[in-house]
Amino acid sequence: MIDIESLIRDIPDFPKPGVVFKDITPLLMDAKAIAYCTEELANLTERQHVDKVVGIESRGFFFATLLAKELNAGFVPLRKAGKLPYHTLKEPYLLEYGMDSLEIHEDAISKGDKVVLHDDVLATGGTAQAACKLIEKLGGEIVQCNFLIELSFLRGSDKIRRHDIRSLLTY
Amino acid sequence: MIDIESLIRDIPDFPKPGVVFKDITPLLMDAKAIAYCTEELANLTERQHVDKVVGIESRGFFFATLLAKELNAGFVPLRKAGKLPYHTLKEPYLLEYGMDSLEIHEDAISKGDKVVLHDDVLATGGTAQAACKLIEKLGGEIVQCNFLIELSFLRGSDKIRRHDIRSLLTY
Repeated sequence: MIDIESLIRDIPDFPKPGVVFKDITPLLMDAKAIAYCTEELANLTERQHVDKVVGIESRGFFFATLLAKELNAGFVPLRKAGKLPYHTLKEPYLLEYGMDSLEIHEDAISKGDKVVLHDDVLATGGTAQAACKLIEKLGGEIVQCNFLIELSFLRGSDKIRRHDIRSLLTY
Repeated sequence: MIDIESLIRDIPDFPKPGVVFKDITPLLMDAKAIAYCTEELANLTERQHVDKVVGIESRGFFFATLLAKELNAGFVPLRKAGKLPYHTLKEPYLLEYGMDSLEIHEDAISKGDKVVLHDDVLATGGTAQAACKLIEKLGGEIVQCNFLIELSFLRGSDKIRRHDIRSLLTY
């Protein structure tokens, strides 16, 4: 048992005034914490059969690849528009001011694939919602939305409430 | 033994005309290939003691976290300017047209830390060179520059030739 909360650093006013950013880099610097979180994130899935773990650019990549290996699944990156080199599906999502979009390779998920979506933080849920849409458009079955941290006061879970939502830490 | 070369896809004219991009997403979609590459990248280090694996944003993150866990080391992300939330050191590097820069958290490496630098591809070597400078400014000792793929015709190794440079695949 590791006190992972003590390894997460609050950064006030990042990326903008009024926001307190949860910095997980002290946790990542700790080999024991990496191993512990990988195992615990995998336990959240109850070790059911998973074909693909989908990670959201770019902090979601840190544990998504580890989780994929731990679950003996493939890994699929979701990236901002223009970053993936092959044929993609694109899904827009709302930012506070304006829009952005996420892309997935169209051959990344096969119809019927059991998929775990992973990101480091569930905040307002906009990117997670766009990610779920992309996975389902490709015929994937989302077995879990899996997060290291949920900022519950931002109510991001409201946007993906059809799914099983699990987090190691909730604030 | 897995034929990882068959899982790497050539994408002509990405990100710009005349460049053939090595797309590793088919490899990442394959659970057995993830496990195989993680083990083989770790074997390149000869399993010597490593304190930190440093990965370069953002495709370098895919195997850098896996390599860190395999080597029982911490993981440190190097990111583009403005992405890391805490106090950073910054190092500029040359692009074909203009400059960009990489940042590292100044508490990410301790003096004397044994460090493996990992990226997915060694191309012209500009980012790898900037990464090495940042690691050494913080007092880290670079025990290896470790890549999934080296594009040897771009001669990136010339820029980091003081170091032990190892790759799983060389083109």
